[in-house]
Amino acid sequence: MRERGILLTDLYELSMLEAYAAHDMAETAVFEFFVRKLPPRRGFLMAAGLAQAIEFLEALRFAPDELAWLKDSRLFSTAFVDGLANLRFTGDVDAMPEGTIFFPDEPILRVVAPLPQAQFVETRLINLLHFQTVIASRAARMVLAAPGKQLVDFGLRRAHGAEAGLLAARASYLAGFAGTATVLANREFGIPVVGTMAHSFVQAHDDEATAFERFARVHPRALTLLIDTYDTERGATIVSRLAPRLAAEGITISAVRLDSGDLGAHAHAVRVILDDAGLQGIRILASGGLDEDGLLSLCRGGAPIDGFGIGTSLTTSADAPALDCAYKIQEYAGRPRRKLSEGKATWPGRKQVHRRYHDDGTIATDIIALDDEPAIGEPLLQPAMRNGRRVAGLPDLTDARAHAAASLTHLPKPLRHLEPHHIPIQISAGIRHLATAMDRMLAPGHHP
Amino acid sequence: MRERGILLTDLYELSMLEAYAAHDMAETAVFEFFVRKLPPRRGFLMAAGLAQAIEFLEALRFAPDELAWLKDSRLFSTAFVDGLANLRFTGDVDAMPEGTIFFPDEPILRVVAPLPQAQFVETRLINLLHFQTVIASRAARMVLAAPGKQLVDFGLRRAHGAEAGLLAARASYLAGFAGTATVLANREFGIPVVGTMAHSFVQAHDDEATAFERFARVHPRALTLLIDTYDTERGATIVSRLAPRLAAEGITISAVRLDSGDLGAHAHAVRVILDDAGLQGIRILASGGLDEDGLLSLCRGGAPIDGFGIGTSLTTSADAPALDCAYKIQEYAGRPRRKLSEGKATWPGRKQVHRRYHDDGTIATDIIALDDEPAIGEPLLQPAMRNGRRVAGLPDLTDARAHAAASLTHLPKPLRHLEPHHIPIQISAGIRHLATAMDRMLAPGHHP
Repeated sequence: MRERGILLTDLYELSMLEAYAAHDMAETAVFEFFVRKLPPRRGFLMAAGLAQAIEFLEALRFAPDELAWLKDSRLFSTAFVDGLANLRFTGDVDAMPEGTIFFPDEPILRVVAPLPQAQFVETRLINLLHFQTVIASRAARMVLAAPGKQLVDFGLRRAHGAEAGLLAARASYLAGFAGTATVLANREFGIPVVGTMAHSFVQAHDDEATAFERFARVHPRALTLLIDTYDTERGATIVSRLAPRLAAEGITISAVRLDSGDLGAHAHAVRVILDDAGLQGIRILASGGLDEDGLLSLCRGGAPIDGFGIGTSLTTSADAPALDCAYKIQEYAGRPRRKLSEGKATWPGRKQVHRRYHDDGTIATDIIALDDEPAIGEPLLQPAMRNGRRVAGLPDLTDARAHAAASLTHLPKPLRHLEPHHIPIQISAGIRHLATAMDRMLAPGHHP
Repeated sequence: MRERGILLTDLYELSMLEAYAAHDMAETAVFEFFVRKLPPRRGFLMAAGLAQAIEFLEALRFAPDELAWLKDSRLFSTAFVDGLANLRFTGDVDAMPEGTIFFPDEPILRVVAPLPQAQFVETRLINLLHFQTVIASRAARMVLAAPGKQLVDFGLRRAHGAEAGLLAARASYLAGFAGTATVLANREFGIPVVGTMAHSFVQAHDDEATAFERFARVHPRALTLLIDTYDTERGATIVSRLAPRLAAEGITISAVRLDSGDLGAHAHAVRVILDDAGLQGIRILASGGLDEDGLLSLCRGGAPIDGFGIGTSLTTSADAPALDCAYKIQEYAGRPRRKLSEGKATWPGRKQVHRRYHDDGTIATDIIALDDEPAIGEPLLQPAMRNGRRVAGLPDLTDARAHAAASLTHLPKPLRHLEPHHIPIQISAGIRHLATAMDRMLAPGHHP
């Protein structure tokens, strides 16, 4: 499989390019990526995926084998395919920095480029921005639900394929997770990688104590033992007997991991067993079907758990695996554009988002305005690419993670507590006037 | 990003391998992949992903740069990393052919290999089998909901990354979809690729009629026009005026596409407009937030829609984006193994699934038995790999698609109609006796 090539796109992107080419339609277009509405129970979203979007745009070109295949496919004319050899992205991109909190209707990325370029990148650009935004937005909720706890991504196995697993590690780290179990995410992004052991390791031995001891001797540093294969409290008792013996040899058990049953109840019982054995230094980690509701419940209930491994609910964002998002044309050849489809109408024009804060630093309101319309507040869309190249000084993943952490502190208290709260999003007078004027022109019955 | 390498795995797989190596634990292990329970509202699942799993196992090896990085990482001892250079998969795999219907607790894939190999492949094997099984299972429901209709995958943009988009096209085609919009899926898998146009194409023009005409002249074959950008019925009227003029030039509009509003009502209105203009040959395609409930409702309501484009609900399997699945050790060194973790206990031993049918060809019951236990019925696990190589004559994607279609006809009528129905799954006497014997041995208080 070569799933990363430029042919990872919808057929209609190429069909439209052929039509644009035939009619010399290559004037400047403005497209914006935005989310139409929040999923149920969600109060905010977190932007992510810009770094991969920029990489995609910078590298955009057809390889010789891709052009040869397109010709052989006979889907398009030879002359058109020959012309694709010159396709590059030469446009400008403005975007919210990764880690920025945002709300419905707000563009988080804006492309200004010749129409064929701006159109062609649609499919993969959405694919990249949507997924990491989905994951960062979910991960941020888990971070808020478990303040002070170490959260780790355990979700590669049930992520939707290879790229999803790798980028979920990135997006969750960006949003405040401490690390991931995915080795490649350490190599590719420098994300701290952590691991424990699987039940199969214990089961491959005839008894649990032997399994623990063998694992410990090979991994004397940062050692975590999984204790629920047969019976959690019995596992803890085995650890309490083993730890002093290993300590005499310089081997330190740093944590035990629970992975089934009532995690809060087991954590209390295990804590007592360990403390009674003088093992206050052994931390308790928990995993197994956890989401932000489970984290809230355990943390508010005072469960003595120091860290959590989060899998499926994170890497598939199981409660909201997709966002109602779009990448829509807003302007072409200097004139604003609007779609009126039922339930999917867009606000026309090239836009900026301005954020205002209360005195205590929390977000008061956002104003979506035309880019050239005066508005008060912090402009959220920042230059990311000019003439097809990234601008200097873009944030790296560490910067983005710090920005995400700061952004979460600007959320109003109810949103920080994952409770319902509505931040008013204003559409500027300039946009409203423009929309009204266009509606008159585009309405049924009007024939321009 | 290099997300397809062998380092796309959980750290603990390598940690366990290091411990197995240190203790010379390399006897034969049996692992099985199965789903613990059905998602809500689901009555069956469809196996998929075996072809990619086999490719992964056949190609399993560490590249020199991956070994060099592992050494630099200092996560493991140099001697252990050096030994990884020789890691290959030399084991046997038996699996349900892709497209087979299956139920909870039934192994759909069984690995028999030296313990380190069988353990190490866990993460990516689950990642590959889980995702395509998720998608094929969802796609099969849509196929059942819209008999005789052409279903097409439109979901790349909201799939979770590149591999998810590409493999969702494959899994849905396997389950009975007619094609995909994803160009690369045609190149990689030979899946029919289809496309229409985007709203932005219409919006980039000053009026809809010009946009339609320009698109038509460039794509005179298999032409589909998107008619809902401003007003669906007005769009249909424009098409009804344009079609005769284009026909005189030899250009045929083959379909129109609706993408918003009440699709059934619009389809009726558009059908009347087209038929009144003598355009009975123009088909109506629909898209926009459809899932199997929407398909059922439109099809049972008699909406004159000939085909559907399905996006997010398919490629994210939004109602059930993950399955509660596992890859668990069942035997090591000739002895059965069992996990007792609360809510996650496994049935021990090396297993086979036998299916029995009613006289009318529908599935009556499945029996999960030990592999060497006599049982009546069609054995569902078939040889897929021997000694690390695929067996001859494995089904290709076309075969798998035919097998999937046949499998759906064996579903009892309520399941074919997406209604609740429980097929009894029996656990054999041999497995039950084994489990009881092991529970006595493994129970708390028992110290072997």
